[in-house]
Amino acid sequence: MKQVLIDTKSKTYKVFIDARLRFTIGTLLESIVTQPVSSVFVVTDSVVAPLYLDDVVGSFEQKLPIHTEVIPSGEASKSFSVYENVMTKALECGLDRKSVIVALGGGVVGDLAGFVAATYMRGIRFVQVPTTLLAHDSSVGGKVAINHPLGKNMVGSFHQPEAVFYDTETLYSLPEKEWRSGFAEVIKHGFIRDQRLLSWLQKEVSSFNDIPVQIVNDLLEQSLAVKANIVAEDETESSVRAYLNFGHTLAHAIESELGYGEVTHGEAVAIGMIYALKLSEKTFKVDLEVEKYEQWFQLLGYKTQIPSHLQPVQLLKKMQSDKKAEAGTIRMVLLRELEEAILLEIPPNSIKELLDEQLEVE
Amino acid sequence: MKQVLIDTKSKTYKVFIDARLRFTIGTLLESIVTQPVSSVFVVTDSVVAPLYLDDVVGSFEQKLPIHTEVIPSGEASKSFSVYENVMTKALECGLDRKSVIVALGGGVVGDLAGFVAATYMRGIRFVQVPTTLLAHDSSVGGKVAINHPLGKNMVGSFHQPEAVFYDTETLYSLPEKEWRSGFAEVIKHGFIRDQRLLSWLQKEVSSFNDIPVQIVNDLLEQSLAVKANIVAEDETESSVRAYLNFGHTLAHAIESELGYGEVTHGEAVAIGMIYALKLSEKTFKVDLEVEKYEQWFQLLGYKTQIPSHLQPVQLLKKMQSDKKAEAGTIRMVLLRELEEAILLEIPPNSIKELLDEQLEVE
Ligand SMILES: NC(=O)c1ccc[n+]([C@@H]2O[C@H](COP(=O)([O-])OP(=O)(O)OC[C@H]3O[C@@H](n4cnc5c(N)ncnc54)[C@H](O)[C@@H]3O)[C@@H](O)[C@H]2O)c1
Ligand SMILES: NC(=O)c1ccc[n+]([C@@H]2O[C@H](COP(=O)([O-])OP(=O)(O)OC[C@H]3O[C@@H](n4cnc5c(N)ncnc54)[C@H](O)[C@@H]3O)[C@@H](O)[C@H]2O)c1
Repeated sequence: MKQVLIDTKSKTYKVFIDARLRFTIGTLLESIVTQPVSSVFVVTDSVVAPLYLDDVVGSFEQKLPIHTEVIPSGEASKSFSVYENVMTKALECGLDRKSVIVALGGGVVGDLAGFVAATYMRGIRFVQVPTTLLAHDSSVGGKVAINHPLGKNMVGSFHQPEAVFYDTETLYSLPEKEWRSGFAEVIKHGFIRDQRLLSWLQKEVSSFNDIPVQIVNDLLEQSLAVKANIVAEDETESSVRAYLNFGHTLAHAIESELGYGEVTHGEAVAIGMIYALKLSEKTFKVDLEVEKYEQWFQLLGYKTQIPSHLQPVQLLKKMQSDKKAEAGTIRMVLLRELEEAILLEIPPNSIKELLDEQLEVE
Repeated sequence: MKQVLIDTKSKTYKVFIDARLRFTIGTLLESIVTQPVSSVFVVTDSVVAPLYLDDVVGSFEQKLPIHTEVIPSGEASKSFSVYENVMTKALECGLDRKSVIVALGGGVVGDLAGFVAATYMRGIRFVQVPTTLLAHDSSVGGKVAINHPLGKNMVGSFHQPEAVFYDTETLYSLPEKEWRSGFAEVIKHGFIRDQRLLSWLQKEVSSFNDIPVQIVNDLLEQSLAVKANIVAEDETESSVRAYLNFGHTLAHAIESELGYGEVTHGEAVAIGMIYALKLSEKTFKVDLEVEKYEQWFQLLGYKTQIPSHLQPVQLLKKMQSDKKAEAGTIRMVLLRELEEAILLEIPPNSIKELLDEQLEVE
């Protein structure tokens, strides 16, 4: 069992990584808590429930009152109404301040159940049991949120889990596009902090079919180490944590313009990273070998161009209303070189110019 | 201008107390912030808005973009739907992470706007501008929340304000019953921590008509000092902060059984305090002079008996499902003597017995 330590100002906890961990969640939870647990509330989604819910519930061997709630699969569940429903269910089940929420699923379940945990009776404990590759990113760092029709993740908190239990076996039921979505964040961690990881990935991963579980365990460990590193330096996103937004400023705009769900998050991030690399090359007059990465991305099945029917003006507007923006300015993470991220305020003109170029190319 | 320092683990801030402070909120805010403010969002209610909103907005002298939102007056505004509406308005106004929310009103506005601030883009700054006596209690300590049909304040966070600006002049437009409601919390602070305050109050306050503003400033300062003291020792309610719940376990049950709004919070707390005093006398076999306090309470217009149509069994059930309860037990704050609060797990039997007695008396 691999372990990655997450050390933030408000809490220190571990990510446990191994195939088949889901059968021991009960015991693992018992081993990591320092305060007694009165009951457990497993939140999962309608796709994950039939696959893994019984295994997780079974792992508690009826030692504790255990309740479950299944939300619809998909981004639309990060809504006010599902949030309210899960709160209602939690109250009906009689969860108290010593109860623990188990978020079993991808980033959607993690973000929603985490926000419920953050705000149920002003905050109770929760653990993450990620079942997607992307959730390696979302399960660590304590960012929890729901969406607002006017913007993604606009309503949320910082609330660290007690632990993250990563059963890598569960990833093998993921459709290819979900591998692709999550893998973009792994690549991102390589770009901003770990050149060695990036080269290793280029060597080891050229398709998402049958990656050996050993490789998956390794890449998760390394990718999580980058995130751990950054989160440790800066829990609440004031400085280096912003580097995690590499590729995300444009990605959010694309997702929002297309309507959430039209592209996966990772697919949008891939486009955003290529754009950010190009803007970096222009801004710092350096060669980052964008073409090489574009080719690898394409090999892996990513699109690297902005969808041609999107309007540069609209994308720009969305980028200006990003959560990380202040009063209409655009701040983006660029790379001076590999591993050398920097957060810069970019003139809207420069953004627009490259958007226009990229959209003409198509 | 009086000042009370609130020193919590997560933040240190001041309560400023003086008549007519509302005309200088803009300047005061400028003086206390350490990070630039991009815009201001004043949240208030439909009763307070016509009285004081212009004064507060005017105090900013158009130095900053300023937006306002008026919610319906009353407890019903601490709901999911008003929460969502205010979030929508905040997004429409383009609030960013450097914006500051101003909560202008009583505890309802403070709790709701505070919860919006706690969760808007994962948390932005806010200040409290309390306009009720009760809000001296709610504006300090960082507890923010909305209600759920299944329980009051069930959804919320801990989020400390940047400062509290208390314009005592605004209290003079309060109806008498709101004075009565707020004053119960002042008395509570006397019981649990400040016997001198309690005696002084008994001497100075025998009606809510025309209390001189000097007395109001003084009593707020002293009452806030008690709260400050307790919050400093224990920000998140694990130990001594629980003492602030003196009188509240039964009060919450009464409010919830009657339906919120049927009695004011303070009226319910007054009944709860008399009950807790009686239970303390029984439990510790001491004489706390309950009759003396009952008489003073009645002079001030409080009811001291549990409304006779309520069912002991129902009240008991509600007390067992209180947020502070764990797995069905009841933990209540009792007094071993004045200023000597203690948090005790009470057998449901004893609770029920005294409830029966109290309800027979009527
Ligand atoms: N909190 C953070 O720091 C953070 C970081 C990045 C992304 N996110 C959020 O994460 C979300 C995206 O996460 P995601 O990509 O995991 O989405 P997701 O949770 O919707 O999962 C993707 C799809 O895979 C299904 N699924 C999950 N596990 C499966 C399994 N083992 N086998 C088969 N199908 C499975 C789900 O039902 C869903 O249909 C977004 O809402 C994003 O905002 C949060
Ligand atoms: N967060 C905490 O620590 C905490 C502590 C105690 C109570 N509370 C909460 O506080 C709320 C009760 O607070 P409240 O009693 O101030 O209620 P409130 O905000 O509803 O105010 C009471 C009434 O007075 C009106 N009003 C407010 N200021 C006025 C003024 N200056 N002149 C005339 N009318 C005015 C309001 O419109 C309302 O009708 C409850 O929701 C309770 O849960 C919170």
